[in-house]
This record gives sequence, structure tokens and C-alpha cells, in this order.
Amino acid sequence: MKLASLPQGRDGRLIVVSDDLAWYADADHIVPTMQALLDDWDRYCPMVESLAIELSHEAIPRKRFHEREACAPLPRAYQWADGSAYVNHVELVRKARGAELPESFWTDPLMYQGGSDDLRGGRDPLLLADESWGCDLEAEIVVVTGDVPQGVSAEEALGYIRLVGLVNDVSLRNLIPGELAKGFGFVQSKPASHFSPVFVTPATLGEAWGHGRLARTLAIDVNGQPFGRVEAGEECTFDFGVLISHLARTRKLVAGSIIGSGTVSNRDPDGSPGRPVAQGGRGYACIAEQRMVETIAAGEPTTPFLKWGDTVRIEMRDAKGKSIFGAIDHTVTRS
Amino acid sequence: MKLASLPQGRDGRLIVVSDDLAWYADADHIVPTMQALLDDWDRYCPMVESLAIELSHEAIPRKRFHEREACAPLPRAYQWADGSAYVNHVELVRKARGAELPESFWTDPLMYQGGSDDLRGGRDPLLLADESWGCDLEAEIVVVTGDVPQGVSAEEALGYIRLVGLVNDVSLRNLIPGELAKGFGFVQSKPASHFSPVFVTPATLGEAWGHGRLARTLAIDVNGQPFGRVEAGEECTFDFGVLISHLARTRKLVAGSIIGSGTVSNRDPDGSPGRPVAQGGRGYACIAEQRMVETIAAGEPTTPFLKWGDTVRIEMRDAKGKSIFGAIDHTVTRS
Repeated sequence: MKLASLPQGRDGRLIVVSDDLAWYADADHIVPTMQALLDDWDRYCPMVESLAIELSHEAIPRKRFHEREACAPLPRAYQWADGSAYVNHVELVRKARGAELPESFWTDPLMYQGGSDDLRGGRDPLLLADESWGCDLEAEIVVVTGDVPQGVSAEEALGYIRLVGLVNDVSLRNLIPGELAKGFGFVQSKPASHFSPVFVTPATLGEAWGHGRLARTLAIDVNGQPFGRVEAGEECTFDFGVLISHLARTRKLVAGSIIGSGTVSNRDPDGSPGRPVAQGGRGYACIAEQRMVETIAAGEPTTPFLKWGDTVRIEMRDAKGKSIFGAIDHTVTRS
Repeated sequence: MKLASLPQGRDGRLIVVSDDLAWYADADHIVPTMQALLDDWDRYCPMVESLAIELSHEAIPRKRFHEREACAPLPRAYQWADGSAYVNHVELVRKARGAELPESFWTDPLMYQGGSDDLRGGRDPLLLADESWGCDLEAEIVVVTGDVPQGVSAEEALGYIRLVGLVNDVSLRNLIPGELAKGFGFVQSKPASHFSPVFVTPATLGEAWGHGRLARTLAIDVNGQPFGRVEAGEECTFDFGVLISHLARTRKLVAGSIIGSGTVSNRDPDGSPGRPVAQGGRGYACIAEQRMVETIAAGEPTTPFLKWGDTVRIEMRDAKGKSIFGAIDHTVTRS
């Protein structure tokens, strides 16, 4: 089942979307919003799934789905916590800041609590007030949970995953060092995140979903050029079960909590930190990694951070080449 | 105007409470929840205020208000961000961890993004799965905002404060050093926070509220004994306007965002880090500070962190001795 929200009020209204993202049917007569569905999943999910089946059979009135018309699936959420499943990313970005990677980072997930009051759509402009902040994209997988009890195990946690999607977890790189030096995590350096137009149930992902990992290629373009073709199923040190269990160690999580994988990142087959797509590599899911590799190779970075007018596109396709979640595709815009 | 929520569904139902906290009137026929009121404040606030006036005139049916029956005013929120207005607290707690206080902490607020999906009532048990985590209370002032634009100035920010209340921002002290060493802020070391039964509009606070500060004594009891009698209006380096402006530097804040002052903390008149209430001092709004002072004086802390069965009470009274927000009053309970 694929779900999206069309703009209405603060929380949007729920729709079901056809597997090929071409059509949709209103679902708000069953349950008004995606949050309300998550709040009472066992009650409403079977009804919304029936609707999705009827849509797939063209048995009900359907309307054209346009990704650009969708808002964030959850335009505001009660929780957004972002993990670090791809330790290669953490290692590279820390190297760029001159910080060592502690050995424990391979066994104990890094995670930060993000702001969730303003979650933006995949086609909404990426608002940036000041180019000197060093705006970067971070392409990631996210899951949305039901109510998760405190102390859940990593294995049990997988059963609480309701939906899967993509995020551009925007970072302001030049604000990060000062903020992390203060020791309390990100506040100003993580502005609003942008989500894929469509979130899907794990069952919809078929064989690509397994053991809390999504084994498909995440495609990132910057200004229309391929920037990353990274494998989300590879080098994913922590699966989503581990990330959820980590977050829920000392408190329960309430339905609609969004958990991120952290920036997808692969090494090169030779163990080196990868190469840009233009050089035959898989490229990167954030600019900071490419800048770090440039610094290692040539002493300084040459790829700039995002400027007003730059475009970012993030998408994942299934085995048949069809977009799974729709694309995050937006322009950096002066706010 | 004083507001509270009685348990109903996930978000409670809105009531107005009399100034003396003895009576209430249902407000959910006007607007169902406190979040819905904050979402559309200009529309609903005048109607709810009229109701509050009628309640004060005993012009409408009224019911007995019992603090123990209230849930958190916002049982789940889209944002909870906690500042560090009282730098004395930061200095002491860092000293306890063997960390220096950077000079910039006196001009640049420290703030962390907290979890807001599960906010608990002032009489709900303080659930603790493991005593070895080092459970501590932190007594603070909070404000709840309307929609705040990105880039708001500290002075303008004051105009977006809708409500004021108290919080016990529970900390798991023994989990903090390891988590802060990872550099991404608190995740496991900050379990669910507990809020005062009643939130009030700034106007209700009269002369006690000014320039984004609340100038009243915050009373903290542990196991029925006075633990802190700290002055929230003194040594408050950053007012709430500064804290909101800091959080909104790179993104807007959505209505219902809760911003905390950080643990209230005073020095002694001689400039030293205060004395316990039992020794004639103002005491502390968290156990970590008292332990630090013990360590300075005697080489090691003697006051233990909270154990199952311990009780914590946090309250603030007005000039006439009446409780302003009702009391956070709860027992640490094995979960």
C-alpha cells in the first residue's frame, strides 16, 4: 500500500496512491489524516488497504496523482530522530571536521533528536536564508513507527514499522562545528527536512525489504547531473530494528515517530571512501562526503555547498525501474 | 487565563481552570484540545477567555478541579526544545563532569532538541526501568509558542509566547557522559518529561512576568523535604525571547512548540555555587548540583540520585501564596 497527503489544514488529508504513482483515491472518509491512521492503525489499516486494492483494480473513482501536489506525508510529527546506519558516512564527515571515529561507533548507533514541527514536501522549495551557512543535502531512508514500548528489542522493533519513505535531511554544514562543540547536538544546523511524496508499507517493497534494511539504489542528482547512486542495502551497519530499539531504550515511542537511517554511504570495492559518479564511482548522498574525498585527493574541496537556484533530486526505483516513493525534487530558494 | 487538559484520547480535552485552581469548566465545545487552540489561537482564544471570565464570575456550571486528574496540558507536542537560561547550572553540572565552561556560554544559549511524542502529567508516576541510570529531576519554566517565523528577533519572539508552565525535565545522569561524548546530544539520557497540571497565559502572571522572565520562587521538595527554593527571575542570563530567537534562527517554529528555560539555578550571595536548603541556602532544582557542591566541599557526593519510591514535588506560588500552575508531584516508579 502506498499513501500520501494532499494539502489541507495543518496535517493534510490522506490519500491512497496506485503502485505506479499515476492515480489516487481519497481516503479521508475512512480516516482524515496519516497521523490519525497511525494513531489507530489496527482499526483503519484494513479499510485503507481495501481501498488500495479497489484502486489497483480500477473498481472505484480515481484521480490523477501528481507528486508535485503532495505535501509531506506527515506535515508535522511528534518525533523525528535520525540515526547513523551507514558508519562510512560518519567516518568521512568526521574526518572532514578533523575528528576521529571512536571504535564504539561500529556497535553503538549515533542518533540525534531532530525538529519535527515543520516537515516539508518533496517538491517544496528548500528555503535557505543565508548561503554562507553551507547548505547540504543528506539523502536517507526513513521509517514511521506505531506505538513502541520502552525497552523493545531490535528484533521486536521491526514489527512496529508501519511505513517506509525517503528524506532529504538538510544540513547547514558551516553551523555544525560550532554547534557540536557546545555538546548538545544540532539545533540551528538542522533546518526543516523534506520527505518523499509517498510513504509505503514494508510489504509493498517485496524482496527489497528485509531484516530492517531496504536493498535498492538511492539516486541523487544535483543540478540535473548524477551525484550519487548509492546502495542502501549495503554497508548498512545498523538496521531499523536496532535504531528503534536504541531510541526506545529509556522511554516509549508514540505512533507516528519517524526514524531516519542517516545518510546512505558506500565505500569503494577497494575499501577507499568511494569516487564521484563522474569518475565511475557510486558517488555520494551528501556534498560533504564528496568534499572530503576531494580534500584527501587534492588538499582542498572543489564542490561547493548548495546555492540559491541549485536543484536536488532524490529517488529510488524498484526492480522494474518504477519510482517507489516519488521523487524529492526541489530548488534551493532564498527565504 | 488558566488552562489544563483532562484525559481523553491521545491529546486530552481542553478545560479552563479558575485562578485558585479549585474549579473548572469544559472548553472542548469551543475547541477540543489545547493543540487545536494553539493552532488557531486568534480565533478561539477570545471565546475561551470569555469562558474563563464567566467561570471566575460563577456565571456558568462549574466542576471541582483536581490536579491529580489532569494529564499533561499537551500530552504530545510537535516540538520540545530546552535551553540553558541559568548558566550557573550549566557551569556546575559541567564541573561535575570535569568539563570547563566555555566563555561563549554566557552569550550564546545552549539548547537541545528533546523528544516530544510522550509528554507526561504532573501526577503521572516517574517511570524508571533501571535505578543505575542515575535518575535526576530538573525543575524548569516552559513557554508554549504560536507560529514563529524564521529569523525572529529576541524582542519580537516575546509576542509569540502563548502559555507558561513548569516542567520536570527528567535526566538519566549516568547515561549522559557516554551520550554527550558521541557529540549528537541527548537521546537515551532524557526520558519523558512531566509538566505542571496547568498552563497559564503570560497576562495571568501579572508583574511576575516581564521581559521574558518569570520572577517567582520555584519550590522543589524531594521525599517531602525542601530541596530547592530557587528564584526563577534571578541570574536568568537568557530570557525566553532570546531562547525562541535562537531556536528559530534557521527555521520557523510551528504552533505548540514548547521551549524550556533549563534548570533554574542561583549562586549564593557570595558568588559561591549555593548551599543546600538544610544549610540555610536556596538549594537546587536538580540533584546533580547538590552532588557537585558536596564534591567540592567533601571530595565526594553524598546525596543519591532518585530511587524507586522517592517523591518529587515542584511548584510555584504567586504573591498571595496560591499555586500558579498546580504542582508536579510524583513518585519514581519501576517500569
